[in-house]
Amino acid sequence: MSANWGTNIELSLFGESHGKAIGIVIGNLPAGIKLDMDEINRNMKRRAPGQNKMSTPRKEKDEVEIMSGILAGVTTGAPLCAMIYNSDQHSKDYSLLKECMRPGHSDYPAYIKYQGFNDVRGGGHFSGRLTAPIVFAGSVARQILKQKGIVIGAHIQSIKDIEDKRFGVNINESDLEELLQKPYPTIDDDIFSTMQSVIEEARMNQDSAGGKIECAILNVPAGLGNPFFDSIEAHLSPLLFSIPAVKSVSFGLGEDITKLYGHEANDSYYFEGDQVKTKTNNNGGITGGISNGMPIIFSVGIKPTPSISQTQQTINVKTHENTTLQITGRHDPCIVPRAIVVVESMAALGILDMIG
Amino acid sequence: MSANWGTNIELSLFGESHGKAIGIVIGNLPAGIKLDMDEINRNMKRRAPGQNKMSTPRKEKDEVEIMSGILAGVTTGAPLCAMIYNSDQHSKDYSLLKECMRPGHSDYPAYIKYQGFNDVRGGGHFSGRLTAPIVFAGSVARQILKQKGIVIGAHIQSIKDIEDKRFGVNINESDLEELLQKPYPTIDDDIFSTMQSVIEEARMNQDSAGGKIECAILNVPAGLGNPFFDSIEAHLSPLLFSIPAVKSVSFGLGEDITKLYGHEANDSYYFEGDQVKTKTNNNGGITGGISNGMPIIFSVGIKPTPSISQTQQTINVKTHENTTLQITGRHDPCIVPRAIVVVESMAALGILDMIG
Amino acid sequence: MSANWGTNIELSLFGESHGKAIGIVIGNLPAGIKLDMDEINRNMKRRAPGQNKMSTPRKEKDEVEIMSGILAGVTTGAPLCAMIYNSDQHSKDYSLLKECMRPGHSDYPAYIKYQGFNDVRGGGHFSGRLTAPIVFAGSVARQILKQKGIVIGAHIQSIKDIEDKRFGVNINESDLEELLQKPYPTIDDDIFSTMQSVIEEARMNQDSAGGKIECAILNVPAGLGNPFFDSIEAHLSPLLFSIPAVKSVSFGLGEDITKLYGHEANDSYYFEGDQVKTKTNNNGGITGGISNGMPIIFSVGIKPTPSISQTQQTINVKTHENTTLQITGRHDPCIVPRAIVVVESMAALGILDMIG
Amino acid sequence: MSANWGTNIELSLFGESHGKAIGIVIGNLPAGIKLDMDEINRNMKRRAPGQNKMSTPRKEKDEVEIMSGILAGVTTGAPLCAMIYNSDQHSKDYSLLKECMRPGHSDYPAYIKYQGFNDVRGGGHFSGRLTAPIVFAGSVARQILKQKGIVIGAHIQSIKDIEDKRFGVNINESDLEELLQKPYPTIDDDIFSTMQSVIEEARMNQDSAGGKIECAILNVPAGLGNPFFDSIEAHLSPLLFSIPAVKSVSFGLGEDITKLYGHEANDSYYFEGDQVKTKTNNNGGITGGISNGMPIIFSVGIKPTPSISQTQQTINVKTHENTTLQITGRHDPCIVPRAIVVVESMAALGILDMIG
Repeated sequence: MSANWGTNIELSLFGESHGKAIGIVIGNLPAGIKLDMDEINRNMKRRAPGQNKMSTPRKEKDEVEIMSGILAGVTTGAPLCAMIYNSDQHSKDYSLLKECMRPGHSDYPAYIKYQGFNDVRGGGHFSGRLTAPIVFAGSVARQILKQKGIVIGAHIQSIKDIEDKRFGVNINESDLEELLQKPYPTIDDDIFSTMQSVIEEARMNQDSAGGKIECAILNVPAGLGNPFFDSIEAHLSPLLFSIPAVKSVSFGLGEDITKLYGHEANDSYYFEGDQVKTKTNNNGGITGGISNGMPIIFSVGIKPTPSISQTQQTINVKTHENTTLQITGRHDPCIVPRAIVVVESMAALGILDMIG
Repeated sequence: MSANWGTNIELSLFGESHGKAIGIVIGNLPAGIKLDMDEINRNMKRRAPGQNKMSTPRKEKDEVEIMSGILAGVTTGAPLCAMIYNSDQHSKDYSLLKECMRPGHSDYPAYIKYQGFNDVRGGGHFSGRLTAPIVFAGSVARQILKQKGIVIGAHIQSIKDIEDKRFGVNINESDLEELLQKPYPTIDDDIFSTMQSVIEEARMNQDSAGGKIECAILNVPAGLGNPFFDSIEAHLSPLLFSIPAVKSVSFGLGEDITKLYGHEANDSYYFEGDQVKTKTNNNGGITGGISNGMPIIFSVGIKPTPSISQTQQTINVKTHENTTLQITGRHDPCIVPRAIVVVESMAALGILDMIG
Repeated sequence: MSANWGTNIELSLFGESHGKAIGIVIGNLPAGIKLDMDEINRNMKRRAPGQNKMSTPRKEKDEVEIMSGILAGVTTGAPLCAMIYNSDQHSKDYSLLKECMRPGHSDYPAYIKYQGFNDVRGGGHFSGRLTAPIVFAGSVARQILKQKGIVIGAHIQSIKDIEDKRFGVNINESDLEELLQKPYPTIDDDIFSTMQSVIEEARMNQDSAGGKIECAILNVPAGLGNPFFDSIEAHLSPLLFSIPAVKSVSFGLGEDITKLYGHEANDSYYFEGDQVKTKTNNNGGITGGISNGMPIIFSVGIKPTPSISQTQQTINVKTHENTTLQITGRHDPCIVPRAIVVVESMAALGILDMIG
Repeated sequence: MSANWGTNIELSLFGESHGKAIGIVIGNLPAGIKLDMDEINRNMKRRAPGQNKMSTPRKEKDEVEIMSGILAGVTTGAPLCAMIYNSDQHSKDYSLLKECMRPGHSDYPAYIKYQGFNDVRGGGHFSGRLTAPIVFAGSVARQILKQKGIVIGAHIQSIKDIEDKRFGVNINESDLEELLQKPYPTIDDDIFSTMQSVIEEARMNQDSAGGKIECAILNVPAGLGNPFFDSIEAHLSPLLFSIPAVKSVSFGLGEDITKLYGHEANDSYYFEGDQVKTKTNNNGGITGGISNGMPIIFSVGIKPTPSISQTQQTINVKTHENTTLQITGRHDPCIVPRAIVVVESMAALGILDMIG
């Protein structure tokens, strides 16, 4: 399995759900950045499990220990390695999962690819737990971007078929700040209770629900990106698809722009004083792969958590028989709320890598 | 602007819509591949303009001249450079486009990024015409993949709000072969006439329409890919977003999977004889970033062609004034049918690069 | 500072000489490799300091703790993170080194590049101590290569102007095995005592000495590599130059081949039974960037350790004055013997990355 | 064979000695660079064959045709493709070279790697002729570097055992300018006639000679580079080893620094006014992988041209017999003078890629 990513900023991700530790190395960090550990820990907590009954009751403190790359809290320019020790490792028997492939999970393709040598305990390296170091790295990236005025925020766009409003063309920093204060960030304050019922219903039925997250990156100046293989979309999309369970990525209106006429889809330019703006932002701040100065808006679709307690039909790869499987243990009935900060983090890493 | 892409297979894309030529260099090709130029030319023709009133009347033969890398029609293992000379260059005056930014196009961000030095004639290097060399490279890739049994095909999933059926779980090679024989490949034979009316209406109104393309990659064995940054999705999505006008990429059911419960979304495994299959293919043949042996299914959303003849509001970057713009010239009212083979080509290049 | 390297095999190197730990992440390892930890630890010990008066008396056990990527001693295919905690950290005052730049060291360029934020304690991330994790990674690589029959070994080619014999054209595995048994591997058994006198003399004079290391990679089949940017030399040389203090890299006879006539330099081919061999191996097993089946032979030149206790002239970057500096502490009078296993490790990593 | 190279500046090299054309694509060029074609052509001519009896009498005009990326002589920011059509293609019979492997050439490893499909005419893609597009790209890079004050020059350090003086610590721009005016640039004006006799003697004996080239890069500010995998040496060495026939690369004194004591090898710093200098430049302007502000000095060793007319012993891969071979045709008895501008070009490309 590949660990490394990036060009101007570098990542190397390692660890397994039930191994000693998970962690990340961040290379090419600028020297002299004073890390705001409080903010980093707030972000870590936004992702951490066990905060309510909508998330898995597994308790992990997700305390980050920085092994290298800082001195007195300030980056030295050397690669920064951050580790999170796994504290809450259940010693339960995982032998069943070596044989019975969980539907919707990586179990079967991983079994084929790694010939059964992969660590299946808690999903091993495939675990969503690996997004914790990504949130750490993303939080560092955000602090560097903030110095350039770039801020990032996201909201729950939908849970199952319950939809929040979309970001408006005039989305600004205080809007994002406001979302950040909400435990379940939606634009429409009233919608989350409906979403919550959907999740609760799924949980009661030993089932799960998915949803969408919409993210905004503000204050990226016009001119970032390239056409074709080096576009903003080409940079951000692989990072976003690297988040477990993400099945769609779209920019601006995304799939909905395909239903408009050209005269509706095109975002007309106008000068507001010296500033160039567009009247709509259907293209999500990107045309020809390059930022046009408007907010960069994208959306990801997250499938329902594949871990459900209902009995499922599957195969046993040892006996070569069809069988059924009931997955016990601690599951998130809906991963969407915890994934918000992961999406923001990936966006930060992608943009920082492009800025160089 | 970046030219290069790829690791195991390498591309370098160059040229401008109204320059001398467009072309591509393909590195790391295996030696000893006898190129089927007839098949390549059939693919080139599927993308070529001027075939009917749904596409731009610009006539380009798109004749490929291979400058290196083959001997007697067989690859030598050396980098293959393919060129397409631009024949139908209008000598019209492009000075207006140096000042008045076309909405929905790359004009404004490119003006900022390249300080006005970029070639604006016909969109320059941003032109959709650059997909011609990509179709060439993709066609070469497909011939290599075919030797491994891997075949690729696509259909028009929707034009505006008119939707074709989706690929079924049992999609096979003859289904794709059948689609390939249709000038406008849809699964539902009757739907294209309705789509055609939508496009024609847009054209009559000096407007344009978008749509979606669904693509299938058959016979990729289970075990291709990796979790996180090296997943199949992370490989394919940047290529797909490199196609001009693509605003969304989704795998399997894509956004629709977010509306299912977990027990519906999970694809149950079963043995059919010795073969492992899933009863549904909502995940599009990929879980945990790795192929599971089922057809890889993905979909891209293409926005309506931004070039429309209607008068649009925009800015003049020289005079710093708000203004209006009417784009004359030859436009595609809907680019979706011509984009099908481009999508297939990108898929072929992405999969070949992963196979190595 | 960049951390990441590699394509088919991936590395991410982190840590500082006097920080908490140093370590490395290895990505894209095959699953199912049973690590021979005894052999790894033997290699770690070959590099470790404090073994005699020719090396620094700093005591570090260099005990590797594997944090991820293995289960029951066998690789899982997931990224393997190996850590070495720093035990022997002196708490001495490093403030002088923040101002007075040590000649021959990275101090001054690092001061400029990282604006004084870099960790100067023991050289920080620039320390030769960072080669410990590289030896770990290289030892893992060697175990994978060994399964393909590829073995690597090296000897001290020279210390200052005292030269050992060069590898002969018939160098074989048992020759390398023999070298491995020697504490100071030279081909000529008698030469090391003379070398030792040179090193001892340097040490007594508070000075240091350099030398050369010649390395052989056996059983690489003909056909590995590419012309130009992807040649064997292009792969190995950046790794070898990444070893601190290496100032030259040469293949085959290296600089000496420039003094031959063409008819002497060319290695004539002949069949020995079915096997293709060359009568000489002046080209070090590589022509046109590709292996020809003969042993791959290369040599690196290592400068005298820049840390010497003699008083040296230098600058104070705070006061902007010329000054003198005496470096106290524990130094290697000659790093060459400890660098042998580092050179072998880099060779292993480079070849494994090319084999893919 | 791989075509692509580079990160911030990108190359893609294609073509064969006796194919239609050779060429290069350069990506990520800044927009707005007015190319000085006269200077480019002067550089092309420095490399071109047929200028005197020390080089091959093959006549090639090496006229560059730019296919993309410029408008009115100014870069647009789009990938620039430059082509050189092959004019002087001999139609001679190359069937012998498909069977009889030329010693010292890529023939045999290429035969194995490409299973006999590679183009053997004139060496195909392995030909030294492929350095012509590299000189073009390097000349463009030099014009961009010149705007930042960085200049590059080189001299013949040795032919066989005849040695020129080395660059002094105070090497400056006018020294390099002076070298550029000489048809055979040596620091010692008298030495080339001796070198010439050596080459002439080799030519008369149907033999060939090698030599070394020393190159200086002036005015690189302190702080460029990184430790380990991203050092200046790690960037430049693969480019330099990509030049056909280069067998050694060394920085500063190179192998000779291994014969000094530490107190001799260390370059003492001093302030000259506000400027930091070193009294010697044994390290070639680089310590810890990073530039220290002194001239970057490196040297490459080039083996004698493997193409010689003397009868040589070799193998026939078709008949599996030992045999003899006499290579007819046009050879350079010594490639060193023509390689100077290639070395300078690679240095320019490497430094420009690092500056980003």
